[in-house]
Amino acid sequence: MIRAAVIPEPHQPIEIRTFPEPEIEPGAVILKTLASEVCGTDVHLWHGRLSGVPYPLLPGHVSVGEVAATGGEVTDIEGATVRVGDIVTFLDVHETCHHCWYCLVGRATTRCPKRRVYGITYGAEEGLLGGWSERIYLKPGVKIVRLRQGVTPELWIAGGCGLPTALHAVDLAQIRLGDRVVIQGAGPVGLNACALALASGAGWVGVVDAAAHRLEAAKAMGADACIALEDDPVRAVRAATEGRGADVTVEASGNPAAVAQGCEMTRDGGRYIVVGQYTDNGPAEINPHLHLNRKHLSLQGCWGSDFSHFWRAMEILSRFHARYPWERIVSRRYTLTEIPDALSDVEARRVVKAVILPNG
Amino acid sequence: MIRAAVIPEPHQPIEIRTFPEPEIEPGAVILKTLASEVCGTDVHLWHGRLSGVPYPLLPGHVSVGEVAATGGEVTDIEGATVRVGDIVTFLDVHETCHHCWYCLVGRATTRCPKRRVYGITYGAEEGLLGGWSERIYLKPGVKIVRLRQGVTPELWIAGGCGLPTALHAVDLAQIRLGDRVVIQGAGPVGLNACALALASGAGWVGVVDAAAHRLEAAKAMGADACIALEDDPVRAVRAATEGRGADVTVEASGNPAAVAQGCEMTRDGGRYIVVGQYTDNGPAEINPHLHLNRKHLSLQGCWGSDFSHFWRAMEILSRFHARYPWERIVSRRYTLTEIPDALSDVEARRVVKAVILPNG
Amino acid sequence: MIRAAVIPEPHQPIEIRTFPEPEIEPGAVILKTLASEVCGTDVHLWHGRLSGVPYPLLPGHVSVGEVAATGGEVTDIEGATVRVGDIVTFLDVHETCHHCWYCLVGRATTRCPKRRVYGITYGAEEGLLGGWSERIYLKPGVKIVRLRQGVTPELWIAGGCGLPTALHAVDLAQIRLGDRVVIQGAGPVGLNACALALASGAGWVGVVDAAAHRLEAAKAMGADACIALEDDPVRAVRAATEGRGADVTVEASGNPAAVAQGCEMTRDGGRYIVVGQYTDNGPAEINPHLHLNRKHLSLQGCWGSDFSHFWRAMEILSRFHARYPWERIVSRRYTLTEIPDALSDVEARRVVKAVILPNG
Amino acid sequence: MIRAAVIPEPHQPIEIRTFPEPEIEPGAVILKTLASEVCGTDVHLWHGRLSGVPYPLLPGHVSVGEVAATGGEVTDIEGATVRVGDIVTFLDVHETCHHCWYCLVGRATTRCPKRRVYGITYGAEEGLLGGWSERIYLKPGVKIVRLRQGVTPELWIAGGCGLPTALHAVDLAQIRLGDRVVIQGAGPVGLNACALALASGAGWVGVVDAAAHRLEAAKAMGADACIALEDDPVRAVRAATEGRGADVTVEASGNPAAVAQGCEMTRDGGRYIVVGQYTDNGPAEINPHLHLNRKHLSLQGCWGSDFSHFWRAMEILSRFHARYPWERIVSRRYTLTEIPDALSDVEARRVVKAVILPNG
Repeated sequence: MIRAAVIPEPHQPIEIRTFPEPEIEPGAVILKTLASEVCGTDVHLWHGRLSGVPYPLLPGHVSVGEVAATGGEVTDIEGATVRVGDIVTFLDVHETCHHCWYCLVGRATTRCPKRRVYGITYGAEEGLLGGWSERIYLKPGVKIVRLRQGVTPELWIAGGCGLPTALHAVDLAQIRLGDRVVIQGAGPVGLNACALALASGAGWVGVVDAAAHRLEAAKAMGADACIALEDDPVRAVRAATEGRGADVTVEASGNPAAVAQGCEMTRDGGRYIVVGQYTDNGPAEINPHLHLNRKHLSLQGCWGSDFSHFWRAMEILSRFHARYPWERIVSRRYTLTEIPDALSDVEARRVVKAVILPNG
Repeated sequence: MIRAAVIPEPHQPIEIRTFPEPEIEPGAVILKTLASEVCGTDVHLWHGRLSGVPYPLLPGHVSVGEVAATGGEVTDIEGATVRVGDIVTFLDVHETCHHCWYCLVGRATTRCPKRRVYGITYGAEEGLLGGWSERIYLKPGVKIVRLRQGVTPELWIAGGCGLPTALHAVDLAQIRLGDRVVIQGAGPVGLNACALALASGAGWVGVVDAAAHRLEAAKAMGADACIALEDDPVRAVRAATEGRGADVTVEASGNPAAVAQGCEMTRDGGRYIVVGQYTDNGPAEINPHLHLNRKHLSLQGCWGSDFSHFWRAMEILSRFHARYPWERIVSRRYTLTEIPDALSDVEARRVVKAVILPNG
Repeated sequence: MIRAAVIPEPHQPIEIRTFPEPEIEPGAVILKTLASEVCGTDVHLWHGRLSGVPYPLLPGHVSVGEVAATGGEVTDIEGATVRVGDIVTFLDVHETCHHCWYCLVGRATTRCPKRRVYGITYGAEEGLLGGWSERIYLKPGVKIVRLRQGVTPELWIAGGCGLPTALHAVDLAQIRLGDRVVIQGAGPVGLNACALALASGAGWVGVVDAAAHRLEAAKAMGADACIALEDDPVRAVRAATEGRGADVTVEASGNPAAVAQGCEMTRDGGRYIVVGQYTDNGPAEINPHLHLNRKHLSLQGCWGSDFSHFWRAMEILSRFHARYPWERIVSRRYTLTEIPDALSDVEARRVVKAVILPNG
Repeated sequence: MIRAAVIPEPHQPIEIRTFPEPEIEPGAVILKTLASEVCGTDVHLWHGRLSGVPYPLLPGHVSVGEVAATGGEVTDIEGATVRVGDIVTFLDVHETCHHCWYCLVGRATTRCPKRRVYGITYGAEEGLLGGWSERIYLKPGVKIVRLRQGVTPELWIAGGCGLPTALHAVDLAQIRLGDRVVIQGAGPVGLNACALALASGAGWVGVVDAAAHRLEAAKAMGADACIALEDDPVRAVRAATEGRGADVTVEASGNPAAVAQGCEMTRDGGRYIVVGQYTDNGPAEINPHLHLNRKHLSLQGCWGSDFSHFWRAMEILSRFHARYPWERIVSRRYTLTEIPDALSDVEARRVVKAVILPNG
């Protein structure tokens, strides 16, 4: 029998349930889970803040596993055969239809009505489709990527779902060599964005957060300046930029009030990426004249990521893991039965990233 | 003696003053004014809403004139000699330094500390440096463009300062063939943006405004749909776009509340240009999650225009004036002594564009 | 029995063969063919110039038909049910895998190893998978689009495969309002590009070709200047652009020698799209210093098109068919048995576009 | 008296001439030269390969000096006062008019008819307007930048004119994190491009050159692979990119034959920057079908650089000089009288970069 941690319904205690060993269909893969994660979305799922979630839910959308069985010949995204013992990860987003207006014309696959996500929109009654489990069942067609040189399971989880998200944001930020960059928020997305901005050749990277231990992680990651939210970050950024403001700002805080402050931190004609507002935390005030029009601001909302970000995240981690200490994003490891602690630690921001080790 | 209309100081009645015929220096040009305009900025100037304005002020920043005299050999922007009798216009923005960080690195010449503007930041005590005057003095170095085939003085003023501004916005909008476009506001910038969106190959253009006579002008300009502000424009736009929202939205209303509505009108992954917020009309509420992040919205503030927009505006007006009735933007003509009426008509939105004919 | 025209093998005469009425599987659709086309690619197919083609071949990749039968519930790309009697077209490209590096990371689906194309890489032995046939079998998953208001079957074929190709090229050309544009070649792609450049707001469009009747079609389409290839087109373009050269040039000629000439026609800092070199007609000489480096030229090769171009082509044709006479691209209609004439007329450039009417 | 090295006319021996100490006009600055350079352009100037050069010529376009005198108050580009003893550099390009079509509309200031360049288009009879001199006279309006923290005069010359050129090319290359990049040519531009590609977050950088000592410099700079031109570089690049080719290729070789090879090295849908073809070394063959169209290649010619690249080059050198050993670009130092050796060493490619120390 397979043990897994399940959210039975919103606000209810996590339960350890057992599932039968799944039967494998052609094209499917069964993984022995090596590592999964608790991210901010999991806290929202626990509190029932996302709509359309089929409880009971087996969470864990980014995970790494060792291949335990394959349903005949299965290939990874490079076309190489997947074999028992391979260490792989997979894209949690599954079954975008490639047939509707959003997939084909709008190129906004996150709006595809057939889109399903491991650990979020697949329910526990549909099988082992989340990472808080000793085994994960990869349905036929799930996109499989093997871990590259130097990328351990825990390092991949340290990047976690925040890394492709941050990569999408940093791509959109179009950082040029020497640009001065501010990251608002030093959570998993913000710390990844900090590393990626540095790796992109930013001339200066400042990180803003309210929590000292998060700013320490940013410092370890290489941030040039760690700015406490209470210390007038707009003034601090202007002081570091000859009074002009940042060339690029990336919002990764989830706080609606950060948006007006981010506009103010960015220079006239600068670029501002809003990637942290993943749940509806209510409205915010901005001044359209001062913050948008007069500033000639370029503001880009960034939602989700696609497979290209996931694939490139692996390349980037393999390339840069020795230069930027991604492992510092991981604050603590938890077994399946410790997941309630992990959820409350993430919620209270006591840890940056919680790693789940279902088999250990 | 030269007669001109002057704002002596904010809130004071317009005065007709007389000036001596200016002496001409080498490289300068004196124009007999054929047409100038009253735009929304002039109303703000009258009410003292802009900072750094050297009253008494001789307004009128976009104007057309006949060359009355030249200070020796003077060339237009194409390198051709300017001769007495030529019908020309000129860029109101003068003396950006081409030497500071904003001019050279930031490419934001509107932030150049040496920037001076005819009719706005030059005062009446510095000479005939505005269009509400029988003569205009073009200092050496003012950028002169002659009217092209088919472009009458009044047609150029119908485009007015709104045309290069709208061109800048429509360039930034990156409209693709077949895109569905919404314009918020049917004032001078909005009507120009409507014509330019149609000329760019938009598949559908809707215009939103509160005033019926402005929507009629939009209809005459060729808008596919004219939507009254009171008639739930978000629903109307969704109905015209299979529920998805506009591919591109251009805000040209000046109303802070338009920004949230514009976000809602735009489809996921769409593009939103905010060009109408030229003065500080206070804050507005937006929902960062719904309006920016989840929508993957691309929002671009647009401030001012540069000479390239001015020059291309002439080409575009010459090319398209027979297809789109720009002259419909002009609601009424006024002499110098009627300028108080023009100001109150523009302020009350009784007219879209007021043309000033200083010499009759 | 169904009659269809087949290329038995390269260089062999076209044969009219009969096929049994196909049995329909769930999700498939059978069309009664209303119109198909002969394009330049069909001539290459007849001469065996493309590799990997499974002869005997039933050509005809862009076609329109009336739905004769459906395999249960089938939906078009908007999600609407497809019903018997509907007039529809479909994307000839089928079965890109959405699972390989080219589909997912490189976003170059034309390099997907599973890509199959109606009338080109499906053979006659696989069924009625080409338009030179009384019936066409649409396999499950073929992307179906219905004809919009004002778009007749013949008008859609007039646009034909050249319209999405030209749209892709014109998108990449990034034409701005007022830009002066040159099209090299007045065949199907060039004439479509001419109409689309005009619809995009070009300030001037010149078309270059060697054949007088093709330049007449360009004139009818609205080209501002029709330039005979023998009349020194570089000089003609410079004369129309104050000596600077075109802002944008689109190569749609298929002649390797056109590339150096196109570079010369384009202004310093201009943009050049090469879309016409669909088969290997050998090398060409360019001067890297003069044509690329010193000119600061932006040159973009353009290969194929994807579904988004196909879908937007329908919107664009519906929007603009009354302004630009697309039907002028069609020179002549042919029945199935007249296809040999159609092929030789296209090859000899006696016609611009040959329409095939398999049932008429 | 001031000593300077002068090319009296093409092909003639370099002469050491003396000049009187210049009189200083308001706004001008006199520098004691700390370092200048011999670059490939200087070899071309010596051989008379550039047109419009006013011999006798005092070459040396990128230089560093200590301020010896100022003509009253002079400010650098940040607005700070320039004082005697400051260590500064300056933009060699002077007097673009900011008034013609190329400056204002085309944004191609390298085509401005009034453009003048220190050491190239100013002649020795106009004064000390080149760096091969004990003193340099900076005319009023020359753009002055002071050396930043960590940037020594020799380090700035190691970057030299190649650094802003390479920065312009790498900006246009739009390298994304993890991209695999090839640089063709390991001269001053190529080595700078190698460092900048690495600093931009490239996932792999390969450098191709014919000379072993240049490839050694590339290795020292951090290139992942150094590929000898004779060793089938296309195959080597494909082997390093899973057979696909480089995401981005930068040509910095000056060899016309490199262009076809560069196209072949680049993946389908990749990006190719041609920056090395600064003089006309004759034509080259390409295959438009294979190299441009079918490859969907994006090819960008890159000509010159502007002040923004110059200014950012200083920021970048200050930021990254400890990570990438720019000083390795400098092969040897020369006094004024050794300049003939420097020219022949550069011409024979015995050195990568020759530094001139006019004062010892």
